[in-house]
Amino acid sequence: MEVIKSARTMQRHAAELRQRGKRIGFVPTMGYLHAGHLSLVDAARPHCDVLVMSIYVNPTQFGENEDFDAYPRDFDRDFRLARERGVDTLFYPDTAELYPENHATSVRVEGLEEKLCGQSRPTHFRGVTTIVAKLFHIVHPDIAVFGQKDAQQAIILQRMVRDLFFPVRILVAPIVREADGLAMSSRNTYLSPEEREQALALYRGLQQAKKRVESGEANSNIIIDEIRSIWRQQPNLREDYISIVDLDNLEPLSQINQCALIAVAAYVGTTRLIDNIMIDKDGTHALKIKNT
Amino acid sequence: MEVIKSARTMQRHAAELRQRGKRIGFVPTMGYLHAGHLSLVDAARPHCDVLVMSIYVNPTQFGENEDFDAYPRDFDRDFRLARERGVDTLFYPDTAELYPENHATSVRVEGLEEKLCGQSRPTHFRGVTTIVAKLFHIVHPDIAVFGQKDAQQAIILQRMVRDLFFPVRILVAPIVREADGLAMSSRNTYLSPEEREQALALYRGLQQAKKRVESGEANSNIIIDEIRSIWRQQPNLREDYISIVDLDNLEPLSQINQCALIAVAAYVGTTRLIDNIMIDKDGTHALKIKNT
Repeated sequence: MEVIKSARTMQRHAAELRQRGKRIGFVPTMGYLHAGHLSLVDAARPHCDVLVMSIYVNPTQFGENEDFDAYPRDFDRDFRLARERGVDTLFYPDTAELYPENHATSVRVEGLEEKLCGQSRPTHFRGVTTIVAKLFHIVHPDIAVFGQKDAQQAIILQRMVRDLFFPVRILVAPIVREADGLAMSSRNTYLSPEEREQALALYRGLQQAKKRVESGEANSNIIIDEIRSIWRQQPNLREDYISIVDLDNLEPLSQINQCALIAVAAYVGTTRLIDNIMIDKDGTHALKIKNT
Repeated sequence: MEVIKSARTMQRHAAELRQRGKRIGFVPTMGYLHAGHLSLVDAARPHCDVLVMSIYVNPTQFGENEDFDAYPRDFDRDFRLARERGVDTLFYPDTAELYPENHATSVRVEGLEEKLCGQSRPTHFRGVTTIVAKLFHIVHPDIAVFGQKDAQQAIILQRMVRDLFFPVRILVAPIVREADGLAMSSRNTYLSPEEREQALALYRGLQQAKKRVESGEANSNIIIDEIRSIWRQQPNLREDYISIVDLDNLEPLSQINQCALIAVAAYVGTTRLIDNIMIDKDGTHALKIKNT
């Protein structure tokens, strides 16, 4: 596995690979790799000849009072895990090159970036779309894989790719969970043992919601209230949002018909966690989100 | 010369060309071609194997009360002129494909898009950067040529390309003028003979400014006032702006030292015209803007 730090070197390398007819698969990460990230590598593998992973904690997707400085970093461990999993090229750029002096350009996906997590993180998604646009131009992938854990991110990026005609296909890989159901996240390391326990309520609420939908409940408010009542049993858990939305436009759905995204965010202590499940009664939408 | 109307076909065609090692040169236009556009073709030619010109009147760069509907169009004439000048591929897309339903994505270059023409056309440049981002992804050029006539546009696009790592080089070709000095523009067709005569004051003002700078005047306000007094002699000419700015950040310069952009915009009757000259005492900046 080679490590490339310079964006210009990475860009030339990608151009050479494509010139030689190689298909490039891309897994962008902020590092501190866990099984969720590594599952993205597995998802990309069948679609490419050369697999590029980036590790970059992107400052512009953190708000002013968020955890950019505290975000966990461990390059040596990430290097080992990526190599073991079969990554071919690790792209490890720095901010001075990705955001040069007088950087002024941003990519926005209006109408989607303000919803769900955008309510409490108003500049988050423009940070994501901007860095991903850069990375796509540098790595020039044929396919890129993102996790369903960040469902809104995946939906926004698919819209960006479609709208701007990026020559890349975005695949979305399923959420990977700990044995007890907690969705994998680099931020889980912030949790105390007690908070870790209370954080399970996110998944329990979603499981209960799924059960209720499967048994015929279609009223979103009833389902949201049930999740909320499960959460209320945890003293250190504070709701950010519990939303049932359309998978295309992220608009709230009062009724769950064929498909929906049930997306939740909560603070457990001071740590903000997100989770979601997709309701997909006839199986067509999951295909869509996974193979666009 | 082939004509391609489908963006997806154009994108595949460009991918095949690059796969075969061909360098693609790109001249994006809104059609109604004049000698200025055709000079961009000449400027692109030495840098590419295949020359693509696009013709597309982009709705998002027109304001609500601007001339989108009235903008002159003549595809047959454009086709003939492009073929005669040696264009290889004419890309002639339609809005339904370039701006599909639920289009939500835009590219912004904040800090530059609000200045000069951005004052009276607040959404213009985001329309330009968004369509050019699409076109770059579809045509995948190695180099793209824009005219210095739209100097702010060229500076904004160069910033966008740098910031987002678009794998393309932007060249800026000199302004082409009519025999009497009026900068070529598709909008010149709007002018009555009388207005056409008064419009010459734009160039006369810039010529006078250049002469004054060359003879040692460095005070921007004095130069701006001289341009203004030339303009005041034309009863149907109304100033939009007369600005002397830094070529990198478009900030006003109180003194002209090594280099500057003198940019002007005026309404002649109801037609808005722009023009500019670059002051470049040691010749380094012209090189920069022309070869970035």
